[in-house]
Amino acid sequence: MGFRGRDVISILDFTREDLEELFGLADYFLSNKRSYKLLEDYVVALAFFEPSTRTRLSFETAAKLLGAKVIGFTSEEGTSLAKGETFADTIRMLDGYADLIVVRHKNEGAALYAAEIAEHPVINAGDGKQHHPTQAMLDLFTIWKLFNRVDGLVYAVVGDLRYGRAASSFIYGLTLFEPEKVYLVSPPLLRARPEVVRVLEEKGVKYEEKRSVEEVISEIDVMYVTRVQKERFPDPLEYERVKGSYRITLKLLEKAKDHMKILHPLPRVDEIDPEVDSTRHAAYFTQARFGVPVRMALLSLIVGVKP
Amino acid sequence: MGFRGRDVISILDFTREDLEELFGLADYFLSNKRSYKLLEDYVVALAFFEPSTRTRLSFETAAKLLGAKVIGFTSEEGTSLAKGETFADTIRMLDGYADLIVVRHKNEGAALYAAEIAEHPVINAGDGKQHHPTQAMLDLFTIWKLFNRVDGLVYAVVGDLRYGRAASSFIYGLTLFEPEKVYLVSPPLLRARPEVVRVLEEKGVKYEEKRSVEEVISEIDVMYVTRVQKERFPDPLEYERVKGSYRITLKLLEKAKDHMKILHPLPRVDEIDPEVDSTRHAAYFTQARFGVPVRMALLSLIVGVKP
Amino acid sequence: MGFRGRDVISILDFTREDLEELFGLADYFLSNKRSYKLLEDYVVALAFFEPSTRTRLSFETAAKLLGAKVIGFTSEEGTSLAKGETFADTIRMLDGYADLIVVRHKNEGAALYAAEIAEHPVINAGDGKQHHPTQAMLDLFTIWKLFNRVDGLVYAVVGDLRYGRAASSFIYGLTLFEPEKVYLVSPPLLRARPEVVRVLEEKGVKYEEKRSVEEVISEIDVMYVTRVQKERFPDPLEYERVKGSYRITLKLLEKAKDHMKILHPLPRVDEIDPEVDSTRHAAYFTQARFGVPVRMALLSLIVGVKP
Repeated sequence: MGFRGRDVISILDFTREDLEELFGLADYFLSNKRSYKLLEDYVVALAFFEPSTRTRLSFETAAKLLGAKVIGFTSEEGTSLAKGETFADTIRMLDGYADLIVVRHKNEGAALYAAEIAEHPVINAGDGKQHHPTQAMLDLFTIWKLFNRVDGLVYAVVGDLRYGRAASSFIYGLTLFEPEKVYLVSPPLLRARPEVVRVLEEKGVKYEEKRSVEEVISEIDVMYVTRVQKERFPDPLEYERVKGSYRITLKLLEKAKDHMKILHPLPRVDEIDPEVDSTRHAAYFTQARFGVPVRMALLSLIVGVKP
Repeated sequence: MGFRGRDVISILDFTREDLEELFGLADYFLSNKRSYKLLEDYVVALAFFEPSTRTRLSFETAAKLLGAKVIGFTSEEGTSLAKGETFADTIRMLDGYADLIVVRHKNEGAALYAAEIAEHPVINAGDGKQHHPTQAMLDLFTIWKLFNRVDGLVYAVVGDLRYGRAASSFIYGLTLFEPEKVYLVSPPLLRARPEVVRVLEEKGVKYEEKRSVEEVISEIDVMYVTRVQKERFPDPLEYERVKGSYRITLKLLEKAKDHMKILHPLPRVDEIDPEVDSTRHAAYFTQARFGVPVRMALLSLIVGVKP
Repeated sequence: MGFRGRDVISILDFTREDLEELFGLADYFLSNKRSYKLLEDYVVALAFFEPSTRTRLSFETAAKLLGAKVIGFTSEEGTSLAKGETFADTIRMLDGYADLIVVRHKNEGAALYAAEIAEHPVINAGDGKQHHPTQAMLDLFTIWKLFNRVDGLVYAVVGDLRYGRAASSFIYGLTLFEPEKVYLVSPPLLRARPEVVRVLEEKGVKYEEKRSVEEVISEIDVMYVTRVQKERFPDPLEYERVKGSYRITLKLLEKAKDHMKILHPLPRVDEIDPEVDSTRHAAYFTQARFGVPVRMALLSLIVGVKP
């Protein structure tokens, strides 16, 4: 189908071929780091109803490096929602000013609803507990750059697989490729959502649920870490009991394959020991940096311009 | 007098000829939707001491599409006023950085005071209870586009005519033209301000005060709706009693002329039923969209550049 | 050493020759007020962990007039620090998106720490109680413009010399030149920090501590005023007793030399009577305005481009 004029709501809306086209263009922008005038006649609205630093700043950087005019807000407080305006009317307003709308919202389905209202393309910059398609795009691009492929690798997705939208989106993204195996590593309370597991099954992806990273550390090529939040546990003692099983330390990494790479959508709190940062395994800062070229590629493809 | 180098404090500072020049240029920008370099050497400061989404984002879009560098703040919190700096010193600072200052403030007269302090032109983006000249400009432009004229039409201005700056500015704007008649439709507590009525009288505009939209619905060509806020009523029961008379519904519109158009400065809360949005009467989203070309025209004229 | 690729942490990192090169370029930008494309391929991150209006807006204006793409945040609230991310990880993120990072932080040493983490140059836009090098640059540039020299003049630095980073940085800046004499005028509680006085001594700058402006008013060429905050005094009565000695009034200025100029980093509260604004002594609004060309010059020199 391609990207031109499309809404970007879920990574599952795209094909492997779409993503490979995206990766190629992202790679171009990565190796030609400079500004462009491709979007100079375009207005991009960043509608962040929920705060975000990384996603917002990398979208803003990407749009500006393409020459776009960027407008928007960084929290609900700055909007007329405080005066009682509906979400729909706010989106209609942005649709009147901008050529493309990037939406971040705490509620599931907010981006899809915005896309139904707006005549211009809408990009989901994270909504609810499952979808953060541009995060999955940059995660997969990072693997594609590091390993020259996404297929045939053994993955562990670690941490909060129930409420973390980055983890769910990453798993969805893997189903567009042919991973060797996907380990889902989480405490029982934070197991992957049934709808996510169902997609793994439908696409025939081999997967297995595990309770600790240690069980899989020696087998995996890629570890995708997310935070296990204390607040998710009704009983703080239960959190204290399990948290060690999801913390990445130098000791744990002694058992890892040499080429094993650690990804994390960031921000991290204490789920990755800072000592890990200087090991050959740490790929999360590179991954964060790739947010800019991947989002430059996505914006260009949706608008339908090429460098 | 023209616009070049002028402050924009009240719509009454301008003539019909000024506005017609503005409309012509706004129409040009509307039909040539692209970016320009006209203001690329200019810095525009958006000094929003009071929050706003629509006015702020459309000014920002307009300035950026003209190539201007945009700086500013979106609420008093972000400024040194919190540290005890005076409004005057804040304006002097902006005057030192920018070539044009857009001011939004809750207090009557703030924009005029800023204009007295600043050497660069000041545009009032809404202050106090009466003046919001750029809103009136885009409101009148919308009518000019929809009816090819502002003269000779029957208008109803509905809702809070006492505290709503958009309603007062719109009425002031109408007095620069030759409306057939202007109905002022409001609860007794929220009648048009004496200074507004006085201008209607001085300019010889035929007007009549009414208590409900129903009384005038069949006669009017343009309905300008604003919100009746519950908080304005000392007695909540009084609000409950009157609110129905200012709510626009499909049933009410059955009695309207075919070509009758509804305007609203937005945001709306519940004063216009969402079912009305898809009728031929709804013009408020178009009106909102016109904020960009009208403000592009205004900025260009004040700076004295032409596309 | 020059500026190219350097971090800007303290004014003491630079030589007199560096500053003279900076002043020359700032003067060029001041007299050629227009926009440039010098930094169009560069992303500048404004990381304001502590709010600021003047420093932030003048950096933003400077960067945009040079054609840079500007991203950032205006307070900690807008960042992932609220989610528990470390300062170091936040800087790493910005380092991945931007080519140059401007940091403002309440804590001493924050900019230096950021510079150690980031691969791209870091500019200190004020941290802790001592360092605000770009403020000192624009202060010294103002004197250089007004007197054609910084050497050979008699200075009084007035107010809070203990906690005010602008005052300390200005004194440090003076030690790079050859002032005739520097009076340090403050209440006993707010005397200049020992490390600041030590630098005056090491550089052989003649200085003297005083308790009131009146004692030195007739001798000085430049008065650098900063605010004496009530909150600094454990006993409010002590504040009431001394505050008059640090307030600049018309009466006080009767004893001043004709050419004496008053500087202030702003914002001011009541330490300079507004009646002083229209005297030939007031230079603080000019000084504020010079923030833009000085920061344009600094950004250009660090990136290594010339107009």
